[in-house]
Amino acid sequence: MVAEFDLIRRYFTTSTADAAAGVCLGVGDDAALLAPASGHQLVVSVDTSVVNVHFPAEAPARAIGHRALAVALSDLAAMGARSRWCFMALTLDQHSAPLSGESDAWLADYAEGFLSLCRESNSVLAGGDVTSGQLTIGVTVMGEVLDGQAITRRGARADDLIAVTGSVGGGAGGLALWQRGERDLSHPLLERYLLPQPRLAAGQALRGLATAGIDISDGLLADLGHLRRASCVGAVLAPESLPLAAGLEDALGRDAAIQAALGGGDDYELLVTLHRTQLDEAQRRLAAVGQTLTVIGHCREAPGISGVGRYARDGWQHFSGETP
Amino acid sequence: MVAEFDLIRRYFTTSTADAAAGVCLGVGDDAALLAPASGHQLVVSVDTSVVNVHFPAEAPARAIGHRALAVALSDLAAMGARSRWCFMALTLDQHSAPLSGESDAWLADYAEGFLSLCRESNSVLAGGDVTSGQLTIGVTVMGEVLDGQAITRRGARADDLIAVTGSVGGGAGGLALWQRGERDLSHPLLERYLLPQPRLAAGQALRGLATAGIDISDGLLADLGHLRRASCVGAVLAPESLPLAAGLEDALGRDAAIQAALGGGDDYELLVTLHRTQLDEAQRRLAAVGQTLTVIGHCREAPGISGVGRYARDGWQHFSGETP
Repeated sequence: MVAEFDLIRRYFTTSTADAAAGVCLGVGDDAALLAPASGHQLVVSVDTSVVNVHFPAEAPARAIGHRALAVALSDLAAMGARSRWCFMALTLDQHSAPLSGESDAWLADYAEGFLSLCRESNSVLAGGDVTSGQLTIGVTVMGEVLDGQAITRRGARADDLIAVTGSVGGGAGGLALWQRGERDLSHPLLERYLLPQPRLAAGQALRGLATAGIDISDGLLADLGHLRRASCVGAVLAPESLPLAAGLEDALGRDAAIQAALGGGDDYELLVTLHRTQLDEAQRRLAAVGQTLTVIGHCREAPGISGVGRYARDGWQHFSGETP
Repeated sequence: MVAEFDLIRRYFTTSTADAAAGVCLGVGDDAALLAPASGHQLVVSVDTSVVNVHFPAEAPARAIGHRALAVALSDLAAMGARSRWCFMALTLDQHSAPLSGESDAWLADYAEGFLSLCRESNSVLAGGDVTSGQLTIGVTVMGEVLDGQAITRRGARADDLIAVTGSVGGGAGGLALWQRGERDLSHPLLERYLLPQPRLAAGQALRGLATAGIDISDGLLADLGHLRRASCVGAVLAPESLPLAAGLEDALGRDAAIQAALGGGDDYELLVTLHRTQLDEAQRRLAAVGQTLTVIGHCREAPGISGVGRYARDGWQHFSGETP
C-alpha cells in the first residue's frame, strides 16, 4: 500500500497553508486549522460513495473523483451555503483492477476529477486520509452561511410553489444507458449521471426567497417527501410540467422518462418551495447564474401528495452492482 | 439494508438541535448547522477505520464504535483542541456475521461505544451517513482552539525535552495478546489496544507549554520522525526511561516490550517537546487532569535519532487481518 500512499501524496499535494482560503494549517499535521468567518454558521455534511453501490467500478476514475465530491457539495447547495473546505477519506483496494499495475494513471485521473471540482466550487482540500480496503470515498464538506440565512427542509407553507432547478431524470436516464453499455461520457445523460454539477450558485441565489429546500439525491418524490414531512405540508404535483433532462424521452419514452424524473434520484438539482410573489425574482436571480427554475406544483395543507397517480412506482432501481 | 438503516436511526437518534452545544441544526436535514466560537480556529481531522485493517472483525462492537471515534479525537488532543462536534460515516456489510441476524445487539453495542465516548469528550454527533459495503467507519471530528494557540508538529527546538503522556507499548502489546487468543477486555493491555483513551484534557493542559506535539498512532519512533522533520531537529532517546504499559514486560519480555513501545503504534498517547524550564509546570498541570508526563529524551540540532540502536527494528507488525 505504501506505493499508493506515495502516489496519493503526489497527486493531492496541496499547499499546507492558504490564508486567503482560511486554511491556517492544511495537509501535514495531526489536524487542519481553519479560520471560520465571523457572523456565519458552519454548514457540514458527510457523504460516502462505495464502489458498486454508488458508482460502477468501471466508471472513469475522473468521474469517480468528481462525483464523490459533487454529491457532498450538493448538500451545501441545498442549504444555500458557500463551500469553503473539504476532507477526503480514500479507501483503496490494492488488489483491484484500477490499482494493480495502472495505479498511476487511475489516481492521476481520480485526483483530476476531485481537484477540478474543488477549484470550480472554491472548496479547498484541507485534509483526509488514505486506507486500504474496498474502494470507498468518504467526503466531508464544510461551508458557511450568514447566521440564520440557511435554507432548510422546514418552512414550506400551504400554497407555496414547488420548483426545481435545471432538469430532472438525467441521473436515472444516464444509469439506464450505462447499464445498456453506453460508455461515451459526452452523452448528456451519462454526463448527468457520472458528472453531476452541484447547484451551489443557485442555492446561494435562492437564500431569502426559498421557504424550504432539499437536493434531489434519493429521487424527486422521496426528497419532496422529506421536505413535506419536515414542513408539515402536503403537495400537488403536475408531472407533465417536469423539466425533463435533454434526451431522456428519446432514451426511455415519455412515461418512463417522467417516472425516472420522479423516482430516479441522482439528479443533484435543488427542489425548493417559495411564495408565488417571489417566483419572478427567483427566476431572475437564477438566470443571472445560468440556471433555470421550473414550477412543478404547489404545497397544500392536507398531508400526502396528489397528481402523480399514473406515474407512481414504488421506487426506481438505483445502481447496485448488478447490470441487467 | 433498510432494516439496518432503521436500526441506526433508532440507536443514533440525537437531538436535532442543541444550542448549548453550538448545534443549530443537527441530524435530519441536508447538512448540519453549527455555531463556531468567535476568536477560535477550527481543528478538523478525518480518520477511517476499516475492518481487518484497523480492527479485527471479531472485536466487540462496543470497542469498534469507541475506537473509531477515539483515534480521530486523538488528533484533536495532539493539537491541544477541545472537541465539539463529530460526524460518523458508517458502512455496514449486510451479509457479514455481525449484521446477519444479530444486527440489533451489534448495533446497540456499537452505538453505546461511540456515544459513550461522545459524552465523555463533549463531542456532539451532529450528522453522518449509513451506506452498504465492507464494514468501515469514517469519523470526522471538529474541535476548537483559541486563535494561534494550537500545538503543531513544528516548533521543537534543540535542547527541548521529549516527553510522553501516560504509558506506551500497550497498543502493540494488546494486539499481540489478541493474536494469541486473549479476549478478556478487562485485561489492561487489551483495553489499551481496543479502548484507547484520547488525551484531550492533557493536550489542552499542554497548550502554551509544549513547543510541538503529535499523537502516537503510527508508533513512537515513526511519529517522533514526523515531528523531527516538521521541526527540523534531531533527537536523542533513552529507551530505558520509556513508561511501559502495565503488564507489557510480563507479556513480551523487556526487550520486546521496549521494541513494542518504540515501534508498535496504536497507543494514542501524546508525544510532546518542551523547554526544560517548563517541565515542572507541565507535570503539575497533567497531574491535575489525572495524567503523567515522562521525559524520554531531548532534541538536538543534528538531524536523525540516536540512543535506540539495540532496539531498532524496521517496523512493528500492525494488525492486518492475519492472525499468526
